[in-house]
Amino acid sequence: MKVALIQSKVSDSKKLNNENISKKIIDASNNHVDMVVLSEMFNCPYDVNLFGEYAEDEKGSTLKLMSSLSKDLSIYIVAGSISEICDNNVYNTTYVFNREGKIISKHRKVHLFDIDIKGGQFFKESETLTSGEGISYFDTEFGRIGHMICFDVRFAGYAKQLADVGCKAVVVPGNFNMTTGPAHWELIFRSRALDNQMYYLGCASSRNENSSYINYGNSIITNPYGEVVARLDDKEATLYYELDFEYLESIREQIPVIKNTKKHDLL
Amino acid sequence: MKVALIQSKVSDSKKLNNENISKKIIDASNNHVDMVVLSEMFNCPYDVNLFGEYAEDEKGSTLKLMSSLSKDLSIYIVAGSISEICDNNVYNTTYVFNREGKIISKHRKVHLFDIDIKGGQFFKESETLTSGEGISYFDTEFGRIGHMICFDVRFAGYAKQLADVGCKAVVVPGNFNMTTGPAHWELIFRSRALDNQMYYLGCASSRNENSSYINYGNSIITNPYGEVVARLDDKEATLYYELDFEYLESIREQIPVIKNTKKHDLL
Repeated sequence: MKVALIQSKVSDSKKLNNENISKKIIDASNNHVDMVVLSEMFNCPYDVNLFGEYAEDEKGSTLKLMSSLSKDLSIYIVAGSISEICDNNVYNTTYVFNREGKIISKHRKVHLFDIDIKGGQFFKESETLTSGEGISYFDTEFGRIGHMICFDVRFAGYAKQLADVGCKAVVVPGNFNMTTGPAHWELIFRSRALDNQMYYLGCASSRNENSSYINYGNSIITNPYGEVVARLDDKEATLYYELDFEYLESIREQIPVIKNTKKHDLL
Repeated sequence: MKVALIQSKVSDSKKLNNENISKKIIDASNNHVDMVVLSEMFNCPYDVNLFGEYAEDEKGSTLKLMSSLSKDLSIYIVAGSISEICDNNVYNTTYVFNREGKIISKHRKVHLFDIDIKGGQFFKESETLTSGEGISYFDTEFGRIGHMICFDVRFAGYAKQLADVGCKAVVVPGNFNMTTGPAHWELIFRSRALDNQMYYLGCASSRNENSSYINYGNSIITNPYGEVVARLDDKEATLYYELDFEYLESIREQIPVIKNTKKHDLL
């Protein structure tokens, strides 16, 4: 399964962001990928004061664009996340499109990003966002793929459930920052992949030193042995990789963690 | 809470191993520690063919020795693990002694170590050992301490349960090898500590290049921010560190992972 993680620049203009992303999706498709992944809030500045203003509902222009791109190019698109409005609540939401342009999965960020690190990053999503519930995944001809958003990835028990339902890879649009990025981004992606013996794909926006929230970038792919197999720096770029699910099965045979997980391990 | 992890050399002689360990426990006590931790199979070669021969029951000489040391020195001893025999079954078992020399917790390794890495390590504990069940922890005047043995630490959902019952540190006697040690030992201890926002203490035997199973050593302590705060190399030595549970609480405030774990994260 060939994937492309698009680490794109986010400006204040939703229109320009969507145009930029469209070009990059077409480029990736020309490189014969099966699935394109976008970053968290790929067309909206990462700012609690702006999520409401940029929000759209399921009839919005962004989802129409993604639907037509996935259909025209016949690829899966995990559309990072956008600010979604529904019944006056605003959510941080991923939509996943299949090769026919249909929405086959939707994830509203479950664990909102509320941190306050001494001398470091402060951010409180729960001031404006409402949280979702449960795990999210979709099926492809290659196998089942899970997905979550950014802060969700910090919760090991939550991530474990995606392994339990048979996912072979988990896609995580996410923007860590200059405090938690260097400290934890690689560690978490390596350990989630190792613990669950699957691929983990983290797709960030490129770094913008002028924004109120300076994100880490460093889109990353980790494998079932806990290794970083592909990674970007902070610049705008697309990360290509071919997921190898035969390798995944061989790791699960060699170190039988998944097989030997006891029933009571999750009670 | 001052702790000492004793990374000791294991020879073929149980008697010499216990004498060596006793001296090191007394040395640690002279350095005013509250708790001493020993390594997995600290008095028995790590060899499935020998576990039966070295096994003892709860009236055995090793447990008597540990009981009297912990009482005489008024310290907690997490007695790594020994080969335990009970009703004709052999277990890989940790006994924990309080300052009065009483056994306050006992853990039979739950996840037996069965691996077969292509071009790397092969080992099958389940050929001779029987597995235990459930999680293990004990209470001290500093807080609740969890414990498990080696391969148990690979199971994130299992480890999560120790956080759920309020543990602030988890002690893991464990001998990784020259394949999985460099690949995974540090990664797992850093991520368990970060994910559960607590201290993780891994205590290994020193490396013996002449044994059938060459272990990694590298006894390690990781903190609630996912950092390595103390570590040995492969040689015989004692690792000292003072656990700071106020720091632990401050990390849990700053990045509210424990607080925001959803009920359904573990279902």
